Order: sequence, then C-alpha cells, then structure tokens
Amino acid sequence: MNLVPGRPEFTILRAGHAEFRVTDLDRARSFYVDLLGFVEEERDRDRVYLRGYEEVAHHSLVLRRAASPGVGHIAFRVASEDDLERLERLHRHHSLPVRWVQHEEAGQGRALRVQDPAGLPVEFYHAMDGAERLLQRFDLYRGAFVMRLDHFNCQVPDVETAARWYQQHLGFACSEYTETADDPPSLWAIWLHRKQNVHDLALMNGVGPRVHHAGFWVQDQQSVLRACDILAAAGMADRIERGPGRHGLSNAFFLYLRDPDHNRLELYTGDYLIADPDWRPIRWSINDPRRATFWGHAAPASWFEEASLVESVADGSLVAPRPPRLRDRPEFVT
Amino acid sequence: MNLVPGRPEFTILRAGHAEFRVTDLDRARSFYVDLLGFVEEERDRDRVYLRGYEEVAHHSLVLRRAASPGVGHIAFRVASEDDLERLERLHRHHSLPVRWVQHEEAGQGRALRVQDPAGLPVEFYHAMDGAERLLQRFDLYRGAFVMRLDHFNCQVPDVETAARWYQQHLGFACSEYTETADDPPSLWAIWLHRKQNVHDLALMNGVGPRVHHAGFWVQDQQSVLRACDILAAAGMADRIERGPGRHGLSNAFFLYLRDPDHNRLELYTGDYLIADPDWRPIRWSINDPRRATFWGHAAPASWFEEASLVESVADGSLVAPRPPRLRDRPEFVT
Amino acid sequence: MNLVPGRPEFTILRAGHAEFRVTDLDRARSFYVDLLGFVEEERDRDRVYLRGYEEVAHHSLVLRRAASPGVGHIAFRVASEDDLERLERLHRHHSLPVRWVQHEEAGQGRALRVQDPAGLPVEFYHAMDGAERLLQRFDLYRGAFVMRLDHFNCQVPDVETAARWYQQHLGFACSEYTETADDPPSLWAIWLHRKQNVHDLALMNGVGPRVHHAGFWVQDQQSVLRACDILAAAGMADRIERGPGRHGLSNAFFLYLRDPDHNRLELYTGDYLIADPDWRPIRWSINDPRRATFWGHAAPASWFEEASLVESVADGSLVAPRPPRLRDRPEFVT
Amino acid sequence: MNLVPGRPEFTILRAGHAEFRVTDLDRARSFYVDLLGFVEEERDRDRVYLRGYEEVAHHSLVLRRAASPGVGHIAFRVASEDDLERLERLHRHHSLPVRWVQHEEAGQGRALRVQDPAGLPVEFYHAMDGAERLLQRFDLYRGAFVMRLDHFNCQVPDVETAARWYQQHLGFACSEYTETADDPPSLWAIWLHRKQNVHDLALMNGVGPRVHHAGFWVQDQQSVLRACDILAAAGMADRIERGPGRHGLSNAFFLYLRDPDHNRLELYTGDYLIADPDWRPIRWSINDPRRATFWGHAAPASWFEEASLVESVADGSLVAPRPPRLRDRPEFVT
Repeated sequence: MNLVPGRPEFTILRAGHAEFRVTDLDRARSFYVDLLGFVEEERDRDRVYLRGYEEVAHHSLVLRRAASPGVGHIAFRVASEDDLERLERLHRHHSLPVRWVQHEEAGQGRALRVQDPAGLPVEFYHAMDGAERLLQRFDLYRGAFVMRLDHFNCQVPDVETAARWYQQHLGFACSEYTETADDPPSLWAIWLHRKQNVHDLALMNGVGPRVHHAGFWVQDQQSVLRACDILAAAGMADRIERGPGRHGLSNAFFLYLRDPDHNRLELYTGDYLIADPDWRPIRWSINDPRRATFWGHAAPASWFEEASLVESVADGSLVAPRPPRLRDRPEFVT
Repeated sequence: MNLVPGRPEFTILRAGHAEFRVTDLDRARSFYVDLLGFVEEERDRDRVYLRGYEEVAHHSLVLRRAASPGVGHIAFRVASEDDLERLERLHRHHSLPVRWVQHEEAGQGRALRVQDPAGLPVEFYHAMDGAERLLQRFDLYRGAFVMRLDHFNCQVPDVETAARWYQQHLGFACSEYTETADDPPSLWAIWLHRKQNVHDLALMNGVGPRVHHAGFWVQDQQSVLRACDILAAAGMADRIERGPGRHGLSNAFFLYLRDPDHNRLELYTGDYLIADPDWRPIRWSINDPRRATFWGHAAPASWFEEASLVESVADGSLVAPRPPRLRDRPEFVT
Repeated sequence: MNLVPGRPEFTILRAGHAEFRVTDLDRARSFYVDLLGFVEEERDRDRVYLRGYEEVAHHSLVLRRAASPGVGHIAFRVASEDDLERLERLHRHHSLPVRWVQHEEAGQGRALRVQDPAGLPVEFYHAMDGAERLLQRFDLYRGAFVMRLDHFNCQVPDVETAARWYQQHLGFACSEYTETADDPPSLWAIWLHRKQNVHDLALMNGVGPRVHHAGFWVQDQQSVLRACDILAAAGMADRIERGPGRHGLSNAFFLYLRDPDHNRLELYTGDYLIADPDWRPIRWSINDPRRATFWGHAAPASWFEEASLVESVADGSLVAPRPPRLRDRPEFVT
Repeated sequence: MNLVPGRPEFTILRAGHAEFRVTDLDRARSFYVDLLGFVEEERDRDRVYLRGYEEVAHHSLVLRRAASPGVGHIAFRVASEDDLERLERLHRHHSLPVRWVQHEEAGQGRALRVQDPAGLPVEFYHAMDGAERLLQRFDLYRGAFVMRLDHFNCQVPDVETAARWYQQHLGFACSEYTETADDPPSLWAIWLHRKQNVHDLALMNGVGPRVHHAGFWVQDQQSVLRACDILAAAGMADRIERGPGRHGLSNAFFLYLRDPDHNRLELYTGDYLIADPDWRPIRWSINDPRRATFWGHAAPASWFEEASLVESVADGSLVAPRPPRLRDRPEFVT
C-alpha cells in the first residue's frame, strides 16, 4: 500500500460540518441541545445549526428536516475560495457529479458539492460566518460539553479505491489502518487526516456508500461518562449503542450514540497530535481484539450493520448502497 | 488532651443545615443556584431553601433576607424527637440560653435553638420533610454539582473549652487536630465528627464566636475546578478567596468562596471514611506548612481574619466577638 | 418486608477483610500489586497481605495459597473484644458452627469464625495491627489507586432468610433492595450496611453459598478507567468481565474484574453517604433495566452464573452450593 | 501589528526539544523521572534523554550536566534535511551566528544552531531516531503522565522585533497576543505556532534573552493536580511556583514547577486546536486580570523576574541578558 499523500494544488483544511436528515426537528433539537449540550447558533423552519463550545464558526452540524433519516452531506473546509474552482476542475476531470450551492445553508458562502468515487456526498466550502467564542463561557456549558467536530467515518464497498482517491488526489495522509488476515492482506479500513490529529475521515469496508458516524471531540473522559448519565436519566439509555470504551486504533476514549432518527454520532477524546508529515502509519490486523476495543469488549453487530444512507448531490435522492468487497466485521463479531 | 468522646443520652447524627443572612435575596439566589448549581427546593418572601443533588431532605442551606450578612444558626440533626428534650435539659443544666422554634423554617418540624458555651447559635432538629431524590437526575445537574452539606467550621476564642463541650457533652469524636508550637502545646484547632468522615464541626482559634464557613461536598476534583471556571466566566472571579488546593489536614481538595455578602462556603472533596470508633486522631503542628495547604501555598490573610458574625438565639441580634486566646494564624502567614 | 434492623448487644463496625484462595501466589500478587496497585503490607510462605492507600490497618485482602480458587472467609470488624464473646453466644444459641482462630493471619488478634445460616464463612475480629498511613504518600500511588475495601457481595439460595438474619440478629440496615415481579413480590437481593454508605454486605439470589465479589473503593472514575487501560496494556484484557458502567442500584460507577484464579473483585466509586438511621430503603424491580446498569448495558451471563465457592469454617473444605429459590437473573439476561 | 506570517522556503514543523543545564544530573533525573514520570530513553555520562508517553522520537528534553543552571538551546524540528541549508542561508544573510553540530546529542542527526535576533540559542534539526510508542503502555505510566513537549516560552527585551522575525522570516502564525495599555499600545507578549495549537513559541517582554519555561502537555486536569500531590508527598512542595490554575490566554489549565536547578517547566492541558490558517488572533490587555489567571489569582513576582540564562551557540558561554523595553509585569503584580 502506498501511504504517501499526493500534493494537490488546493488545500483542504479539516472536517467542517455534517448535515443530518431528521424526521422530527424538535425531537432532534432536544436530543442534541437539551441533553448533549450542543450550542444552537441559528434555527429556521427546516434546519437547526449547531456547534461545539470551542468552535468559532457558524455551525459544524446541521439538522435538516427530511422524510427519512440519513446524511445530506459531509463537508470539508478549504483554505481559499479559489480552491473551490480547483476542486471543481479535478472532479469534472474525473467525470464526477458536481453542483454549486449558495444560500442554502445559513451562515455559509458558496459551496461545491460532489459525489466522490465511492458515492459519498461531499461538500467543499471556504467562507462561513464567525460565531461568538464560547470556550471560556463556562457558565453556559451544558450536557457533554461538546467542544468541536472532529471527523467523519464512512462505510464504502471498496476501501482501497476510495482511500487512493483521498490520498493521491485530495492530499489526505494516513495515520493508522487495518488490514485483513489474507495473504496478501487487503486494506479493510483507513484513518485519513488533514488537520493534525488522527483523522478527518475514516473509511471502513462495509455496505456503502453510507456515513457511519460523525465524531465530536470532548475534552475529557468525564464528559463522555456524563453523556451516558444524562441520557439514562432522561429515559434515553437506548440511544447508547456502544461504549464507553477505549479504541486501540486511535487510542480514543469513545462513546457511540444513535440520535432519535438512528443517525450515529461519536463522542471522543484522548487521541493524539500528528505534527510530523513523516508520521509512520500504524498497522492493525482486523482480528486483533485490541484494535476496536482495547479493553476487549466486542462491538454490537448493529455497529457493523447499520449506518446512514446518503443523498445524491444531483437531486437529493438517497443513494442505493452496494455490498462490500470484504467481510464487514472481525471474525469474533457474529 | 483527652480525645475520647463522652456518651450522651441523645444521638446527634450530622451537620444538618446552615442559615446564611443575605442582604439581597435575589443576588444571593443567583450566586448559589444559577452559578454554583444548588437545588432550589422552596422559596418564600424572606428565605430560599437550597440543597445538594444527593440530599433527600428539604434543605441544607437557608438564605435569609437580613439587614447585614452573618449566620443565623448552624443546625445538627438528631436521631429522635425525644433527643430534643434531652438536649434542652443538658443546656438548661449548664445555664445556656435555649429557645424552641416552630413554623419558622419551611419543611422542618420543631427545633431547639441554643447558644453554645462559645456563643455559637446552634439548632437541633429531627423532623424535616423529604425531597425528591435527584442523585440520578443527571439531566438536571448544573454548576459545581454540589452533592451535600458536609460540615461547619467556626472560630472561637478558646478552642480547648469549646472542644471539651462538644466531645464530652455532645459526643463528638476527634479526627484530626492542630497544636501550637508552645511547650506544653495548646490546642489551636480541632476537627470533630458524628457522621463517619473527617468532620461535622471544626473549631479554630480566632476572633469569635464566628462561623468561618459551611463546607459542601462535591464528588470529584473537576467539580471544584468547574466552580472556578464558572465564576470567572460570569465575572465573579473575585468571589474565589483561596484554592483550589489540597489540605494536608483532612486530605481534602478544597476551594473557598465568598458569596455576594461575603459569607464563606467551601467546596470540598477527597477526605476519608472513619468507620472505626477507635480511630487515632492525627496531630498537626500549626507551623507545619503542609497542614493547611499540602502543596505549600499560604492562605491569604483574609482567610484568618474574616468570618461571619452570628446571631443571639434569644433576640436575633448579632453577638459581639471576642479576641482569641492564641495567635490567630501560623507564623508564616503575615 | 420488615426493613428495620434489630438492636444487638454487640457492634459490628464494617467489612474488614476478605481471604481469597489463589493457586499461584506469585501470579496473584503480580495481578493485585504490580497491575492494580494494592499495597503489600506483609508476605509469608502462604499468604500475601494487601490493603488500600487509605487504610491504616494491616490488611483488607489476604491472598492465601490453596489447591483451588475460592474464598476462605469474609470478615467484619467489631467494636470491642467482648463483642466476640457476645457473637459466639448468639451463633451457638442458633446452633451455628463457630471456631476461634488465633495466630493464623499475620497482624490480627484472635477471631471468631462462624458459618452463617446461609453457609457463608464469616469472621469477626477486633484487634489488628496498625499500618503506616499512605493516604498522603502520593509518590507511592500505583495502578488503580485502590483506597479501601468497601463491601462483600454474596450469592445465597434464599435471600429473605439470610437478610432476616443480618438485619434482626446482626443489626445491619437496608439501603436498597430488589424484588421480583411476582405478586406478592419476593426479595431478590438486598444491600445491607453497618458503616455509613450503601453496603458492607449485599445478598443476591443465586447458587450459594458463594462469594460473588469483594468491592474496593477508588476515589474517582479515572481510577476505574485506568484499571482497564493497565490490564489491557499488560495483555490481561480478558480479566475485565463487566463495565465500566454505572449501577442504578447504589449509583456506583463500577468495574468487575476476575483475578487470575477467577475470583471476582469490583472497583467502585460514586455511591453515597447514609448518615440517617431512618433512611428509607430504595426499592428496585428485578426487571428494571436501569437497576443493574443505569446506562442499559446487560451484564454477561457469567456475572450471574459464576462466583467463588467458600470454605467450611470447621475443616476448610469447600461447601457444596445449592440452587437458588428464585430465577437467578433478570428476564432480559439470557 | 501585522499578524500575517511570511511564507518561507522551508518548513518548521514544531517545538522539538529543549536542553536544560543541570548541576547534579542524578538529582535532576530523579525529579523528572522518578517524580514527574518522564520516560528515560537513554543516558550517558553527561546527558539524560527524556520524552513523554505520546512521543515516538528519541527525546524532547535533554538534561545536560553543567556548572550552572540555564538552557543550552531550544530546538525546532523541520520537514526535511534541505530545510537546514535554507535556514543556514537565511541566518547568514542576516549576519546571525550559525554553527553546525553533529554527534553531540544521542539519537539525533546533524543540526543547525543559531543565535536568533533576540539572542536566543535555537537549534533546527530534521533527523531523530524513533522510539518505542508507549502511548498504550498504560502499565508503565508514572507520575504526571507527561505526554509530549508542547512549547517554549522566552523572555526578550523587545517583543515586537523578535515577533517580526519569527512571523515574517520563519513562518510562525499568531494565536493570541498581549498589548500594553499605552496609546498606541505596544506588543507585550505574543503566542506563535507552527503546529496546530496555541503555541510552539511564546515571546514575553522581560529581561532577556532568557528561556522562561518549556511547556509539556498532559492529558487531563488530574495529571496536573497529581503532580502537586506527588511533589508535596516527596517533600518538594517548594518546587511548585504557580498554579494549578486556568490561563485566560490560551485557556490552558497550568502548573509551573521549578526543577532542582530552578529551571522552569509548565505542565499544561486544555488549550485548543487551530486548524484554520485564517484564525483571528485574540487580543488581551496586559492589565486584564483574567488574562494570566482566569480565576483572578496574581502570579508571584518570581514568575516575572526569574528565568534561565541561555548559551551562546558559538562557545557555550552564558549570554548576558539586557533589561526589557517595557515594564515587565502587569500593574497589579508588585
């Protein structure tokens, strides 16, 4: 596997925001804002715009009223407006669907939406309104003290092809990866980053294209545990799908939640800084029991089987997913 | 020093509640409820009744509208109604002022108020209304997650005499104590308990009778640190008087706050269980720098000099304090 | 159910220590001392004596070399030497096996061993050597920072009968209990205490007499999580049986570990103080999913099925357990 | 103030390591390794090489035997070997002293040492041996669980000139800065970064050139508090100079320690990610009491007055410091 990123003529900065389709906007808002403590920046008839306490841009999570659950798009911020034209050229050159959007999301400038080679709906944007810095408004902190969006995790039928695209054409670097036990091994999952930590985007082998989860960073382990306590106290313990636990891969202390529409989010802390571009990616075997949960707990089958359908950037219809090329879970998960 | 408690014919259970005089009830309520997260159980024209998330009785802190700051009384819960008559007899026998009160505090049955030998206004009561158990209502937790009242700390001019009263006549046991560097040493302060931790009542040498602080227990160090963050964010950093730090004596992780009327409260965690009645009290020297702050930070002079005046149980007037028998602070505090 | 404790003529103070049978003393010592950070106070050919950082007595856990795993005895400390004779009379009066032991455990005075009505081997003792107080020797803290023994949890075939014994004859008070969904309900489990927190002894319906676990108190949630990290790093993730999680019953943040001989211990924090003797016990239904794990995770079947056999106090042979009177687990655990 | 960084032809990656002069190597090693838990990677007659648990390179702190305390150099890692020649050209062009070193520090390739315009001894290097990744060896964690070097803080007589050099010529970006209350204001201090958090290098107005401290990142607030407890338990509370507390500037939870030679280090957590190059620097006024300590505690005078002398890269002699251009502390610090 060639793990060296390409050097594109544009600069993707980081995971920027996700748009979750929700069937009941009030119910979803209550889950994210009243229980988990997301900051509500703005709300209109069809959308609620949320962010974490550390973030100084308008939103990192959009809840959009829709007829069914799913993910409208995942979005990356780029370094300049011109980068958007460069990204348009790249995608057109590879005959990938592109669409410009403007005035659709509050607080955001024009954006380029593309369907990536795996079928994921990806948005690129540069301009977004600033928002009041609440990092030191500790008197306003509520819920799990969600600090910021960290990454997206997506299931795709063919990880090797998708990973090559993000590494060679979009400039993502690999922090860690998982291979099958075959000889030669196949790439089963990969953690890719632009900002200086473990990932902005993880790609896992599975039924896809689907968005598995959006990961939000919290500042300590207590914040993760408090999320469990709060949800259980509110009679929503069934929203806790997996964890709290420690990932071997990434070292993160994690919790997976399903929102009222079963879209999945992760609360996450404890990964590490990667400030050296010559970082040597860490290899894991799919059947290493410490890879997924360092403490040895098996993930539930739902964690491997269920994920959010994604929209076509052309018409907003949901993209039919395809089966994966490889078995979708470790041998010890049944 | 004789440290063995007497065996009275009544049973004092624990520190029960304190009544703080405040000059602006709304301002005080905002400090305790909106910022620190105390639970407001009831409010009337002159009083706000507060408690912690772990407590299942009506109140452990009363804010009472008054013309000046101070402490109306500190109160201990006893095991039965009959204990109140027994306590009345004891105090009358020693010619100490007593007064029965009823229907004064909401949620509480009849109570016996006395002026102890040092002049402190002490209330004994048994009956108090129950309150909803919020320990597992994590969705309601706010502020510093204050769990429960733990203890009172009082300044008296003559600690030896006051300590003898609480030990021999009221059955308190000593957990730790501080002596002067004199030969023979004098008792400078003493930590006395009825429930099974370090104290329900501490007596310190100083201008008195005054109540130095009421101590509230929180469940972890983060709760203490969060109180600092919240107060500073709300523009009230000047309410932080001392800490956070570790006490050598009691091992507690502490923070001292002054409410808007300058009454003092402590947030407190990390002391220890004393389940054995033959516990050997721990002796400290007043000049041991690790005694007050294990990490070596000196307390500010205000911590030794300032405390709340207390009421006469007879007529509610404030008791004029007297100078202490011994120097009121360690040699290294100027 | 009558939940009022009797008033015996002796005073049991608290859970004092447990004796675990281990087949490889070095291996067991390494697990408890090198990984979990228990303090080793003394060691001889057949026993290792351990305690927590807060404890000032010689030991709270004895590892004893034996041909098979199991529990030699659980022990309660009493308030005086004379209490031992009073306890002997009580047990003889009820025709229960008793045996005096002396010079068997290092650091401990004479002790009375009895087989309780359920068949559990229980030791009572008063005298034990003191040990250096390490609470403030933070430079020595290792592993999970285990503070002190908290409680024993035992499986018995008939909880109602066993509970009646401990309440009426030994003076234990009930903090919380679990009933079946039958009409009328049966007592399925009970949490009993002498010291002022949730329990010194829990009795659960199950194959018995067996000791389910000894619970050790740690000071914060991080200590529990750190235990998981350390065990996994040392290649012993398979020693983690259940948790970390929050108990509904007791509110404790818990972790269940199996030592190398499969004896079970719990690391435990976050329960609450019970300083009022008129505490109203909290009732739970066996089928309330929040009872066992507040966050909704089901316990593994092993947690209900497996426990340590116990010794006969007469001859040290292992007592054959009997099936329980009631189903041994909630309906949702299969 | 122009806050836009220049675009040099080389890439500085991050703060790499510091070299502290110590007069007693064993005593210093004991402080850093035995008490604070730094990882010792290698040791020879004159140097001890240390790092944190997250770091995978040979060292981030060198203790070097010397006749007096001080700092030998601070070092930044660059992206390639060729960057070193480019940096040599830049410094020669500006007539700044340069010297190539090789085989001086174990585990490191050739390095370029320069005296920067303010007189600070700065090393640039690319090649360093890898070291075993201990991030998940939780069984080895000791002390304060130090994770990684984060930044250097230096006192210079003229911050504006020094800041211009690092921004315009070396490509550092500004995260936050402090101005005087004058009209127009002067730049009093600046926080500059290459990696994606608040700083790799802070420059403060003061007697200089001196290194004020090296900052090491820990993963949570408990690690900071544990350092206090451990030092105090070991009788070294006098090594605690300031904190624990919260910085307003950077939002970090901090602790300042003086090693046995009075070189200063900071333990540090809780700052934030800066992944956007168009981050708008945050401005503070020198007299804002929340700037230095969000909770309002004043820093001790020693924190402003004392710092480590630095070496000449030409001959290793200590550089004579000069007085600062501006008053060296806020008005409220006396």
